[in-house]
Amino acid sequence: MNIAKVIGTVVSTQKETTLESLKFLLVQNVSIDGMLEPGLPLVAIDAVGAGMGEIIMYASGSSARQTLVTKDRPVDATIMGIIDEITVDGKIRFRKND
Amino acid sequence: MNIAKVIGTVVSTQKETTLESLKFLLVQNVSIDGMLEPGLPLVAIDAVGAGMGEIIMYASGSSARQTLVTKDRPVDATIMGIIDEITVDGKIRFRKND
Amino acid sequence: MNIAKVIGTVVSTQKETTLESLKFLLVQNVSIDGMLEPGLPLVAIDAVGAGMGEIIMYASGSSARQTLVTKDRPVDATIMGIIDEITVDGKIRFRKND
Amino acid sequence: MNIAKVIGTVVSTQKETTLESLKFLLVQNVSIDGMLEPGLPLVAIDAVGAGMGEIIMYASGSSARQTLVTKDRPVDATIMGIIDEITVDGKIRFRKND
Amino acid sequence: MNIAKVIGTVVSTQKETTLESLKFLLVQNVSIDGMLEPGLPLVAIDAVGAGMGEIIMYASGSSARQTLVTKDRPVDATIMGIIDEITVDGKIRFRKND
Repeated sequence: MNIAKVIGTVVSTQKETTLESLKFLLVQNVSIDGMLEPGLPLVAIDAVGAGMGEIIMYASGSSARQTLVTKDRPVDATIMGIIDEITVDGKIRFRKND
Repeated sequence: MNIAKVIGTVVSTQKETTLESLKFLLVQNVSIDGMLEPGLPLVAIDAVGAGMGEIIMYASGSSARQTLVTKDRPVDATIMGIIDEITVDGKIRFRKND
Repeated sequence: MNIAKVIGTVVSTQKETTLESLKFLLVQNVSIDGMLEPGLPLVAIDAVGAGMGEIIMYASGSSARQTLVTKDRPVDATIMGIIDEITVDGKIRFRKND
Repeated sequence: MNIAKVIGTVVSTQKETTLESLKFLLVQNVSIDGMLEPGLPLVAIDAVGAGMGEIIMYASGSSARQTLVTKDRPVDATIMGIIDEITVDGKIRFRKND
Repeated sequence: MNIAKVIGTVVSTQKETTLESLKFLLVQNVSIDGMLEPGLPLVAIDAVGAGMGEIIMYASGSSARQTLVTKDRPVDATIMGIIDEITVDGKIRFRKND
């Protein structure tokens, strides 16, 4: 899974019917310190109630469909967890609400 | 899903039989402001009636086959929704027909 | 699907048994004008009778196995169509035999 | 599979229910000498009891779900083995506990 | 499939049980002339008896599991054939044992 920040939302009225009721969030990859990295953001489905600005991890590809919310739906990126803490080499590098 | 713009069409007469009747659109990734990004465009199947110049989101890989239109067909990129609005950090960055 | 040109062939005598009788073509990604792009070519399976020098579209990943020719075979790139014409912003950018 | 080093851990309380009880490790790709390479680390699931600082190999995509620990769970990167030794051109380039 | 050279081996004692008895080879992508390209090597499973220094083609992702040797095993790259000859634009660019 990649680590990313929820930076925005996407509205789509005309969409595949099986995507109805899903929440589309814009996520951008971040470093282990939670800082935004270059690159284009992705549209990810929210499976855990992630909020704006939170650091999350998302799964890509067919793994994105292995949740109750996304099963058999045409999604390729799903937020699987809100990250509380990232520790590298014994040092806390990111902590939620720091 | 990636955010892209429909920039063109592809015609293919001699093709895999299960691709018959599908519409091949050329899509190029865009920024959150809807501006074209560098890189090669992809051929995506249209599952939502997307029009030329529209900003859309498409799914890749096996997820591209999870629609009525593309089920069991050999496609790896499908347009899943036409984007009306992209909001980042509370500001609208893209709005359809702006 | 990506757009590529058939630039060569690969011969492999000692191979996975389920790959017997498949045709291995070398394909290299091209621009919308049909010009070769930098990067390494791939070995793709031919599902449509593509010829040397032709501009084609190929599917990657599990989608490459969704054809009669490639079903359940260990291939990850299959040529799905020979491209006759690419139109971008209303202008024809590539036409076969131009 | 990619070769990477276990550099840290990720804590996530609010997560997809099927991810409960899995261990989230941060892994960063390394060279054949075991030196860290540039690029963002990934969150990988541990299927083999890997420890901090160890050089491991991980599988990506749907293959990440082909273990008892990760079956049908929404994970896209799983540590499949702890590497003892890497030999290139007859020379040992990495040995565990060197 | 990608074209690569077998450059080494990986030893892993502590590994996913379903990986027992598989042979882990290090493969590095090569040009159509068989010259090593920059980038990190991958750990690929050998399904065809490839030897050190040979130029091979390998499949990635779920396609890597479509062989008798790798079926239902957690591998994401499998060597599918030893390459005898690569021809581009009518000229032989690589021939085994040249």
